[in-house]
Amino acid sequence: MSVFVPEPAGTETSGGSWARSLRCSKTGKAGDLHRPQFLSPAGAPWLVDYDLDAAKGQELRERLPDRPWTLWRYRELLPVQDFEDRVDLGEGGTPLIRLRRLGGSLGAGETEVLMKEEGGNPTGSFKARGLSLAVNRARELGAPGVELPSAGNAALALTAYAAAAGLPSRVAMPEDTPGAVFAGCRAAGAEILTSPGTLVEAAGRLQEEDKGYWNLSTLKEPYRAEGKKTMGLELAEQLGWELPDWILYPTGGGTGIVGMQKAFAELRELGLLGESKARFVVVQMAGCAPLVRAFDQGLDHAPEWQDPHTEAWGLRVPKAIGDFLVLQALRQSGGRALAVAEERLAPLEARAMREEGLQIGPEGAACLAALEDLAAEGALRPGERVVVFQTGHPANYRPA
Amino acid sequence: MSVFVPEPAGTETSGGSWARSLRCSKTGKAGDLHRPQFLSPAGAPWLVDYDLDAAKGQELRERLPDRPWTLWRYRELLPVQDFEDRVDLGEGGTPLIRLRRLGGSLGAGETEVLMKEEGGNPTGSFKARGLSLAVNRARELGAPGVELPSAGNAALALTAYAAAAGLPSRVAMPEDTPGAVFAGCRAAGAEILTSPGTLVEAAGRLQEEDKGYWNLSTLKEPYRAEGKKTMGLELAEQLGWELPDWILYPTGGGTGIVGMQKAFAELRELGLLGESKARFVVVQMAGCAPLVRAFDQGLDHAPEWQDPHTEAWGLRVPKAIGDFLVLQALRQSGGRALAVAEERLAPLEARAMREEGLQIGPEGAACLAALEDLAAEGALRPGERVVVFQTGHPANYRPA
Repeated sequence: MSVFVPEPAGTETSGGSWARSLRCSKTGKAGDLHRPQFLSPAGAPWLVDYDLDAAKGQELRERLPDRPWTLWRYRELLPVQDFEDRVDLGEGGTPLIRLRRLGGSLGAGETEVLMKEEGGNPTGSFKARGLSLAVNRARELGAPGVELPSAGNAALALTAYAAAAGLPSRVAMPEDTPGAVFAGCRAAGAEILTSPGTLVEAAGRLQEEDKGYWNLSTLKEPYRAEGKKTMGLELAEQLGWELPDWILYPTGGGTGIVGMQKAFAELRELGLLGESKARFVVVQMAGCAPLVRAFDQGLDHAPEWQDPHTEAWGLRVPKAIGDFLVLQALRQSGGRALAVAEERLAPLEARAMREEGLQIGPEGAACLAALEDLAAEGALRPGERVVVFQTGHPANYRPA
Repeated sequence: MSVFVPEPAGTETSGGSWARSLRCSKTGKAGDLHRPQFLSPAGAPWLVDYDLDAAKGQELRERLPDRPWTLWRYRELLPVQDFEDRVDLGEGGTPLIRLRRLGGSLGAGETEVLMKEEGGNPTGSFKARGLSLAVNRARELGAPGVELPSAGNAALALTAYAAAAGLPSRVAMPEDTPGAVFAGCRAAGAEILTSPGTLVEAAGRLQEEDKGYWNLSTLKEPYRAEGKKTMGLELAEQLGWELPDWILYPTGGGTGIVGMQKAFAELRELGLLGESKARFVVVQMAGCAPLVRAFDQGLDHAPEWQDPHTEAWGLRVPKAIGDFLVLQALRQSGGRALAVAEERLAPLEARAMREEGLQIGPEGAACLAALEDLAAEGALRPGERVVVFQTGHPANYRPA
């Protein structure tokens, strides 16, 4: 676990989590938090409900100063029951970096542009947040093993957390996934399956041969969203309990947007956040933009994208089970959805290093392209604050 | 800059640094903080002196809760004058991770083993801390450009911070430095020189053709040690203003040990740290162990190591200008110096992933080997707390 003013053993055996039950994201019906749960009876994602009020908000704020600089500082807003025994590789607590030049050179010079840099997480990406929570809960609830299909970063995170938890793991990935991902999963002792196509086909490989492992696919279990939620909690705390005007987020499965929206709602219940609204911007690639298309067409769900292609591996997600939640969050926040041309990524990655000293991945570059587009159409007003997510370290995308 | 409760522009034009002067580490003579300084007239490293007392310590503790989770939370103990305009890529604030199994499986089961994981820093290593400070000061003091000889990670950090600062940079490295390092420096726009041998020979390449850039070699200017110092500040804060019993540190140039010892002394002056003493353990490789040899022989300086060889690149440092300061710190702390055989690294890197889910580099593995050795000889007492430094992400050591 990450340490910070260690608490005497036994003082907080339950971790003090304020989680009280699960709730179906479609029907609102309750579910038992203390049993293994995957999709709800309605076939929709479960969300975790917490018992929250303003007094608790005050309590939390007073406790935060003595907490570690990781996502575990928000332990009351997380579902892990045995806090002291948790698996913890130091996930979260990532910096929010003010860009010095790139905002201006992309035409957004009158706004403040901040980058939430997630590449320093364990296993090099934001996936560590969700999979830390999901693996911790799988371990607490007695999973014999864990598995998922992945475009890359989720596999690296799953297999590392499974190793730390002492659980066997299995991952299925498209055969053209970068070599560094396969090497990392092998190093963690995972079983690896491959398939042609995308992670949709990879998911099929897991079903062919059922090992009884728990499937921790995005939003097909309740806890990855809770881990991703901490990006929203951190943003709010890092900005002095205010939200930015815009959040540009590279969106594959969309758990991050669902999680951040949930974080902001919980902080409001705790009295820690005013009515300030952040507008979410879903950023996808022109070669795989199911949510952008659905948003533009006014649909509630996003039909599967045929023949998806992009080397922003994290965005090669043709179909997302939480599509309706992402589209809801976009519309509620007055947000936008933008698709970015593939050829814009490499030049923006290069400029991030030359102009800012930042080593970003293709998903981060996609968000910078979206920033440029929003600026060009005059959507950003002077003095607004924009947060751009840079979700993964590019080293994970190397051939080996 | 990293953001956290942003302060209104102009409220802290000087950043509130408590730095007051430079001091020669050999003679104690004062030097002017506001002019460019490299080595002292006595040919020794300069150190930065601060104006500190218990009232200031109280002030600092009260301010910390609203500060970013980066090394900039300790701004009063840093030498940067124009805090608001600093170059800041989110360095520092790294997690301190409790090992679940590896302590036990290495024979140190009765101690608490924590890993200070520095691989999530910008540019993937602890070098970001020192070079952030050195480049910031070079920029403030009017450097036309910056340069250094490097075994790898320092070059990646220098060139990224120089890019962010808008300064030209030049690095000189041994020709067998891993390809990923060359690629990273090129991406940052740096000029690259190579040489046979180690960074001693590389340093010569910079002198062959003087460009008038400022040389930011370890301890040949006063500010890298100030950045490294923040590892000590963080350790103390993360452990509730206590020190661990042991600090195992992979030691090349030794700035980290010099910096941490300075951090602890400053915290004592501030009344934030009791008399608890941490014993430093210098960890080097059997193929390049000048400080270990000097310590064993009772010398005050460490003569150059002939024919150095190790693939723990950061430890291939045959001669350190701050050798006498490191040896002093070791002896004052009742510490140790251990050399580790090369063939122990790879198995320990593999075990860190398999047993803990942690992706560590060779320098971190060297410290785990030293932990095993200390445990085997019975040096660790039950209940003691050991901090092991893992200083760099292994991705930086890939061929390309």
